Amino acid sequence: MPIDIVVMKAVNAENDARAREVRTQLTERGILGLNFMSSPGSGKTSLLEETIKRLTGELRFAVIEGDVFTAMDAERIARHGVEVIQLNTEGSCHLTAHMILEVLPRLNLDGIDILAIENIGNLICPTSYDLGEHRRVACLSTAEGEDKVDKYPKLFSISDINLLTKADLAPHVNFDLDRVAAKLAALNTKAPVITTSVNTGEGLDAWSDWLRQGCREAAAR
Amino acid sequence: MPIDIVVMKAVNAENDARAREVRTQLTERGILGLNFMSSPGSGKTSLLEETIKRLTGELRFAVIEGDVFTAMDAERIARHGVEVIQLNTEGSCHLTAHMILEVLPRLNLDGIDILAIENIGNLICPTSYDLGEHRRVACLSTAEGEDKVDKYPKLFSISDINLLTKADLAPHVNFDLDRVAAKLAALNTKAPVITTSVNTGEGLDAWSDWLRQGCREAAAR
Repeated sequence: MPIDIVVMKAVNAENDARAREVRTQLTERGILGLNFMSSPGSGKTSLLEETIKRLTGELRFAVIEGDVFTAMDAERIARHGVEVIQLNTEGSCHLTAHMILEVLPRLNLDGIDILAIENIGNLICPTSYDLGEHRRVACLSTAEGEDKVDKYPKLFSISDINLLTKADLAPHVNFDLDRVAAKLAALNTKAPVITTSVNTGEGLDAWSDWLRQGCREAAAR
Repeated sequence: MPIDIVVMKAVNAENDARAREVRTQLTERGILGLNFMSSPGSGKTSLLEETIKRLTGELRFAVIEGDVFTAMDAERIARHGVEVIQLNTEGSCHLTAHMILEVLPRLNLDGIDILAIENIGNLICPTSYDLGEHRRVACLSTAEGEDKVDKYPKLFSISDINLLTKADLAPHVNFDLDRVAAKLAALNTKAPVITTSVNTGEGLDAWSDWLRQGCREAAAR
């Protein structure tokens, strides 16, 4: 599938109004909008690839890949036959609703169940910009260290689900999955915590169920 | 050692002028100023701790720990009996020279050889702010993935040394150390690349030698 690359600079003005426009468009079509946020290298793209593979024939995905430069992630997603746009910010460290609103008409959303937006790898600024999603997905890889929950509490507080990724690495990096899961659950009592690994498949059934439930709610709106 | 916590917001105006002031102060004292930049969780603080331990009695460090919130990293550094200040940005995703200039008088720099500034974990915005350092140290952990050099070329282009960290994890995360080292060397021909691990000690002799050489140059200015 060809990659559509759009270059955009951050425009903060009226972000919330634009986010509402995005959300309305998705809601009217019964699409579940997801905003994936994490550090660089926490495994967002790998998780998305594995999720798309697992749910092929059941849920249809469209993807907006945010990155500072390059179309590497969109190329990875496109290999799975999914509608995808690469959105390059050329220096900006987060996506804005303005950017999403601009690229949305370029995606063929007919029959799509989930629009997954992969934000720029950054634990700070993306938390301040509503993109028009219905749910925020925060990822934390075991390799980043247990202290990240305390050091970046906002991301894990405003999220609708907290995913611990790269669980298979935990024994090599002295990361206590149970302790961090408990900390996340205490910090954000409304968001489920799922421990995942795309290498072992751990947690991917629970994650898929969460997506199915979100899609049922989106379809019923 | 007590932790000095300072809260500051980013002020972009006149950053370069303030950076020159910081650099002048350090140069006049014969201190080598280092600006450590990387993703969150790449192991900057662990590297700094291990470096301080190894060079005890030989080189004297002072440290400015940048973080969005918490004094966790400064507490780790303070355990080594080193002069340290925690600089909290409360939301800003990078440090500025203004912040460094403000906190510098709070540090006792008598007899100090190296001022290590640990920037906010972020691969994007810190690259646009000169802090008054003499050398920029970029770190990339193997757990973040090989694609980060292509996705965030600016950081690894403007750095004076590129450190591959967590080398001991490479076999578990399918990271080809030689390939990435060659890519970094091609991207930035003036910066040495050192593969390191604080767990195995790999590369720490070469890294210590680079610091010693920098200190000799700083003392000779």
